[in-house]
Amino acid sequence: MKNSTRERLISARGKFLDELVSFLKFESISAEGDKSACRPCAQWLTVLLRRIGFDDVRLLEGASQPCVYASKTVSPDAPTVLFYGHYDVQPADPLDEWKTPPFDPQIIDGYIYARGAGDNKGQVLTWLRGLDAVIASGELAVNVKVLLEGEEEIGSPGMAAVVLANRELLRADGVVSSDMPFYADGVPAMTTSLRGLCTYEIAFQGPSMDVHSGRYGGLVVNPINALAKLVASMHDDAGRVAIPGFYDDVREVPQAQLADWRKLPFDESALAGDIGLKNFAGGEVGVDPLVREWARPTLDCNGIVGGYTGKGSKTIIPARASVKISTRLVADQDPQKMDSLMRDFVLSRVPAGIRCDFKALSSAAAVSFPTDTPLIKRAAAAIEKVFGEKPVFTSGGGSIPITATFAEQINANVFFMNMGLPDDGIHSPNERFRLDFFDRGADMVCCFLGSNPLE
Amino acid sequence: MKNSTRERLISARGKFLDELVSFLKFESISAEGDKSACRPCAQWLTVLLRRIGFDDVRLLEGASQPCVYASKTVSPDAPTVLFYGHYDVQPADPLDEWKTPPFDPQIIDGYIYARGAGDNKGQVLTWLRGLDAVIASGELAVNVKVLLEGEEEIGSPGMAAVVLANRELLRADGVVSSDMPFYADGVPAMTTSLRGLCTYEIAFQGPSMDVHSGRYGGLVVNPINALAKLVASMHDDAGRVAIPGFYDDVREVPQAQLADWRKLPFDESALAGDIGLKNFAGGEVGVDPLVREWARPTLDCNGIVGGYTGKGSKTIIPARASVKISTRLVADQDPQKMDSLMRDFVLSRVPAGIRCDFKALSSAAAVSFPTDTPLIKRAAAAIEKVFGEKPVFTSGGGSIPITATFAEQINANVFFMNMGLPDDGIHSPNERFRLDFFDRGADMVCCFLGSNPLE
Repeated sequence: MKNSTRERLISARGKFLDELVSFLKFESISAEGDKSACRPCAQWLTVLLRRIGFDDVRLLEGASQPCVYASKTVSPDAPTVLFYGHYDVQPADPLDEWKTPPFDPQIIDGYIYARGAGDNKGQVLTWLRGLDAVIASGELAVNVKVLLEGEEEIGSPGMAAVVLANRELLRADGVVSSDMPFYADGVPAMTTSLRGLCTYEIAFQGPSMDVHSGRYGGLVVNPINALAKLVASMHDDAGRVAIPGFYDDVREVPQAQLADWRKLPFDESALAGDIGLKNFAGGEVGVDPLVREWARPTLDCNGIVGGYTGKGSKTIIPARASVKISTRLVADQDPQKMDSLMRDFVLSRVPAGIRCDFKALSSAAAVSFPTDTPLIKRAAAAIEKVFGEKPVFTSGGGSIPITATFAEQINANVFFMNMGLPDDGIHSPNERFRLDFFDRGADMVCCFLGSNPLE
Repeated sequence: MKNSTRERLISARGKFLDELVSFLKFESISAEGDKSACRPCAQWLTVLLRRIGFDDVRLLEGASQPCVYASKTVSPDAPTVLFYGHYDVQPADPLDEWKTPPFDPQIIDGYIYARGAGDNKGQVLTWLRGLDAVIASGELAVNVKVLLEGEEEIGSPGMAAVVLANRELLRADGVVSSDMPFYADGVPAMTTSLRGLCTYEIAFQGPSMDVHSGRYGGLVVNPINALAKLVASMHDDAGRVAIPGFYDDVREVPQAQLADWRKLPFDESALAGDIGLKNFAGGEVGVDPLVREWARPTLDCNGIVGGYTGKGSKTIIPARASVKISTRLVADQDPQKMDSLMRDFVLSRVPAGIRCDFKALSSAAAVSFPTDTPLIKRAAAAIEKVFGEKPVFTSGGGSIPITATFAEQINANVFFMNMGLPDDGIHSPNERFRLDFFDRGADMVCCFLGSNPLE
C-alpha cells in the first residue's frame, strides 16, 4: 500500500469511527413494525458515498427498502468489482439482555457494541473507509461499484427484481462481500459456499375464540397441541428431517473437501461454551459438526406463539397457534421443490377440527463458487498480506439470498473477504465488532483495490 | 310454601329487582387492573344481609378481596346449610361486542343483561330474595349461613386459607351453590361432580441467547422443536394422554349414570357451531362427548411462546421456549400424584442440550358428591316442585376449587341448585340472566329452606 493511502487511513480514522457510530444509531430494522429508519439510513449512506468521491450515487427502488448504489470508474480496461453489503439490521429484542443500548453504540475493550455492529454495518463502514483512502490517494486500481441493500435480514424478497431491473448498471467481474466472519480468531476465511434458506409460517385455527378448557377440554382439538404434534413429526429420533424427499437432492461433500475441513481447528466445547452450551447436541446423529453446519440441510422453528403467555395460568383452549419455520438448504436442493414438499407435508397432516393457514415467506437456493479466478486470487493475496495467514476456503451455514441472484442475473462470481469473529453475537443481544477489523480490514480493502495488492 | 312467604316474595319483588340492578352496577372485577369496586360491593352486601335479618354479618379477610359472611340460626336441632356464591365478575372486554353497557343493567325481553348477571350475581340476589321471604314470614326451617367470595373468577387463590381460618364459623351439614346453569332450557340440573385442575409451566432453555439459525442450525438443539416433541409425546394417536399412570386412578362412570347421560339432549353440531366448529373432534376416540367433558381427564396446552413472534421471519434458534399446560382431573385422581407423574414424565424427556424448568402452579382435586343425603333429597324435591321436572344429576367439565376445600376443611357435601342457561354468555359479551329464574329460583329457595319443601 502506498504511503499516501496509509496516511489517509490514519488521518481519517477518527472521522470514520464517528461515521460508524452514526451509522449504527439508525434503527434500520427491516423485519417488523416501525421500519421508518431504513430510508433515512440509506440517504445518509448516499451523502457519505458522494463525499468519498463516488461518481454516480443513487437509490435503487423496487425492494421493500431502497438500495444504495454507487460507482467509481478508473479505467475501462480495469476489472470491475461490486462490493455488496447491507445496511438493515435484525430486531434488537430481547432488549433486556443487552448490557448497552442496542442503538447507542459503545466502545468497550476494543469492541464496538451495537445491533448491526458485526452484521453488517461494521464491515460496510470498513470498506467505505478503505475506499476513501484509495480514492483520496489516487491509488484505486479497479473499477468499483457499491450495492448496499436494506432487506437482507428478511431474506431479500424484493432484491431479485432490483438486480434484474439493473443488470447493466450492476455488471461486474466479481462481487465481493464481507457479510461473513473469520473462521476463528487468527484464521482468515473466504467463504465459497452458503446454505440456502426457505421460511414459512404455519397457523392452526381451532375454535373461533379462546374457549374454557373445562367446558371444552376433551371436546375441542387444541391448536397448540396439534401444532406441537405437527412440528414434532418434522424430525426423526436421529435428528434427521422426516419430510419425505427432503434429502433427495443433497450433494454429498467430496472426500478431499471433507479432509480439508477436518484439519480446521474446531474446539466444540469452547464454541458451544460461547453460547452457554456444553457441546453441540443438535442435528443429525453421527455427522461431523462442520458438515452439519455447512453441508447438511436443516429445519428449525424460529418462533412459536399461541394462547395465554402472561403470568400465572389462564384455563383456555386457544383459538389459534402459529409457528415460524426456516429450512437451510444445501446444493443441489431446489427451493421451489422444498416449498412444495413442505406444503404437502403440512397440509396432509392437518387434523380434523383445525384449519391451517400455510405461508411460504421467502426462498433462496444454496450457492457455491470457484476459488481460483484472478479476482479471488488477488483478494486472497491481500488477505494474506494484511493478516499474515492464507485464508482458508470455508462454507457458511447461513444464507445470503442475493448471492444466488448475482450468479444468475449478472453472471458474476461472489467471494467473501471476511471480517469479524464467530462470537460477535450477530442476531443476538450484545452484538459487537472488533475494532482491529476496522483497521486491518481497511488495510485489506486498500491492498485489494490499490495499485499492487502485494505491496 | 306458606301464603305469607309467597306474599312477601311478591311484595318485595320490585325492591329486590332494584337491588339486583344496584348489585350489577358494581364493577367488581377481581382479575386485573382496577379492583377497587370489590370491597364497596362486599360492604353493600353486608348492609342488605343485615336488612334481610341475618344475625351475624361480617367481612372475612385473608383473600385478595373480602368475603361476605352471614348467619341466621333458627334451632340447634335443625340442619345447617351454607349458601356459597361470589360477587366478583370477569373483566367485560371485548367491550365493543356488548349491545348494552356491561355495568348499566338493561331488562330486554325477559332477560337482564350485564356483566355478572348469569355468573353469579343474578343467582346470589335470587337466593337473598328467597331468604328474605322465608325469614320475614317466619318460615325458615333450617339454619343458614352465607359465604360470598370475591376472587372466584381468578381461581380463589386465597380462599383455602380463609376457609381453614374460619372452619368453625363455616361448619355446615351441606354447602349449596347456584354457580352452574340448567343442563338446558326446561332441564333442571344438580351438578354432583366437577373436574379438578392442575396447572403447569414448562420452560426449555437451549443456548444462553437467541442464535443465528444458519450459523447454529444442525449444531444446536432447538428449544421450540424440543418442546414441541415433548408436548406431542403427551398424547397418543387415539387422543389419550400418554403419560404413564395418568388413567390409573380414574373412576369409571357407572353404567346407570352413563345410561342417564345418554338420555340427555346433546346437539353436537349446534354446540360446536357456537364456537365456530362443525363437531367436537377432540379428546379420546370412541368416547361419548359428555363423558369426555364430564368424566374423563384431559391435558391441554393453554399457551406457548418462544423465539420470534412478530411479523415476517427472523432466522434464529431461540434461547428459550415455554408452555403452559393444564390437566382436568376426575375422581379418584390425586393432584399430588398427578404433579409427580407430570414432573417425572417431563424431566425424563429433557433432551441433551436443553435445561428444563418445571413448575407446578396450582392444583385442585376433582370433587364428586352423593346424590342421596337428606339435604340433597330436600333440594331435589324443591326443584321438582317449582320447575315441574326432576333435576338430572350432571357433572361439570370445569373446576370450582373452593368445592374441594369445603369437602376437606368442613367435611360438608356440596350440591348445586342451578339457575340460568348454558347460553347466558357467562365470561362473554352480552351476559344475561333470565328473570324467570329470579322468580322461580326464589320460589325454589323458599321451598328448600321453608318448613315443608313439598308444600
